[in-house]
Amino acid sequence: MSRLMLEQANAIIAAAFGQGAEQGCKPLSIAVLDAGGHLIAFQRQDNSSTLRPHIATAKASGALALGVSSRKIAEMAAERPTFVASLGPISANGVVPAAGGVIIVDADGHAIGAVGATGDTSENDELCVLAGIAAAGLLPQK
Amino acid sequence: MSRLMLEQANAIIAAAFGQGAEQGCKPLSIAVLDAGGHLIAFQRQDNSSTLRPHIATAKASGALALGVSSRKIAEMAAERPTFVASLGPISANGVVPAAGGVIIVDADGHAIGAVGATGDTSENDELCVLAGIAAAGLLPQK
Amino acid sequence: MSRLMLEQANAIIAAAFGQGAEQGCKPLSIAVLDAGGHLIAFQRQDNSSTLRPHIATAKASGALALGVSSRKIAEMAAERPTFVASLGPISANGVVPAAGGVIIVDADGHAIGAVGATGDTSENDELCVLAGIAAAGLLPQK
Amino acid sequence: MSRLMLEQANAIIAAAFGQGAEQGCKPLSIAVLDAGGHLIAFQRQDNSSTLRPHIATAKASGALALGVSSRKIAEMAAERPTFVASLGPISANGVVPAAGGVIIVDADGHAIGAVGATGDTSENDELCVLAGIAAAGLLPQK
Repeated sequence: MSRLMLEQANAIIAAAFGQGAEQGCKPLSIAVLDAGGHLIAFQRQDNSSTLRPHIATAKASGALALGVSSRKIAEMAAERPTFVASLGPISANGVVPAAGGVIIVDADGHAIGAVGATGDTSENDELCVLAGIAAAGLLPQK
Repeated sequence: MSRLMLEQANAIIAAAFGQGAEQGCKPLSIAVLDAGGHLIAFQRQDNSSTLRPHIATAKASGALALGVSSRKIAEMAAERPTFVASLGPISANGVVPAAGGVIIVDADGHAIGAVGATGDTSENDELCVLAGIAAAGLLPQK
Repeated sequence: MSRLMLEQANAIIAAAFGQGAEQGCKPLSIAVLDAGGHLIAFQRQDNSSTLRPHIATAKASGALALGVSSRKIAEMAAERPTFVASLGPISANGVVPAAGGVIIVDADGHAIGAVGATGDTSENDELCVLAGIAAAGLLPQK
Repeated sequence: MSRLMLEQANAIIAAAFGQGAEQGCKPLSIAVLDAGGHLIAFQRQDNSSTLRPHIATAKASGALALGVSSRKIAEMAAERPTFVASLGPISANGVVPAAGGVIIVDADGHAIGAVGATGDTSENDELCVLAGIAAAGLLPQK
């Protein structure tokens, strides 16, 4: 399997929203991107603020851009803030250093896409993403 | 009614995809934006090219930017090409002068959002958008 | 009430300038945006520097982008500087983490716009904004 | 006299809106810029679309950028479309080649600012701008 399908992307978002509802999260925005960083599906729950589409997309595309989760990018940013800050302006969708952006891999460990979530704490955003990926029968990058 | 809800946005996309399937359209990409031009929901069907998210969004946000459908913007572009070309660089999401971007209005005629579609001919893109808006019980701007 | 009108925007600016004069503030620049982050009215007092229009707008649009006042964004920036810094490049008008950007809400707590001020200290900028919103009979987000 | 004051900018907008009301124009958006192309005052009438602030500003700043009215830039664009199109991306606020952007000059013919209007036809936009400049006791560039 080498490509993420729209049906899978929609399943990821539905399950991530379900997880968010179960945990009592604030309204979430979730973006699912293909391996090239291009949007497949996005949904923003009611009463979310206006930058959420960009933050969700940037968490996911930043992860693809650097090959690690946005949680690891946050750790990189703590150690090398100016390096990470320099990447935003040269990345088409920006790079947001906060948990909630996770790469999806195939059985060989190759990236086939990424998911980004925003709206609650970064910790909860990431939990919802991981629940969504698992519910769709897919694998997050370790 | 003054705001477009996620449930409505998803209903628009589902019905527009249904219309596309019925007409035998190529894979479609559809974006639903709020009145301020911010994404509520987006879906890109399998085997679509990478710029589709931006084209769908730009058709819808260009309509909101100028207050008329992207079909009318295409007519403006035929008469005044340099004027319309000058708007892309000053509009956050660009302005795409081709049918398929339609404003949704409330009972008073005020914009509450917009839908943009791309993938087939502009004519068909617009037909799918109009079918989606109607199926969700909403009104396109006349 | 679901939309901010030009008459209200002008009233906000007039009252905010009145507050600034009373407190002996330096020349102020004040922007009033609709819920989507688009400018309704702006005024820059004589002898203000050239970036003031952008700072005033970015305080207000940053507040709408994240759903909290620019004072809270300043607090977020103190805790997570690289996260907040990453948002500027992906936000159409930027995000300025300093008090003086306040969301206006309707009776249900939904954003109907925002006001941003710059020119004096951030504390005073915010006081003038709050005075302006109150004088126009509107509600700031708590 | 070498500087445009906020009081004058507000007078220009008020008189231009008055002219628009008299002629039955659609809702107008009017920007007044200083000689450096930086916003002094802006107002957008109710029920205007979202790109109006940028179009009004770009008509005025394009005029200052090239030293002629946006009506003349439209004539240049008819003769040399690719040249004029190339200027938008390198100009901070863009260049919109359509009448409605007029430079204000002092007694020596030096630019002290510019006004840009959008919302009705370019012809009417410009008539409102000229009425506003005259009402404020100022001179448009010939």
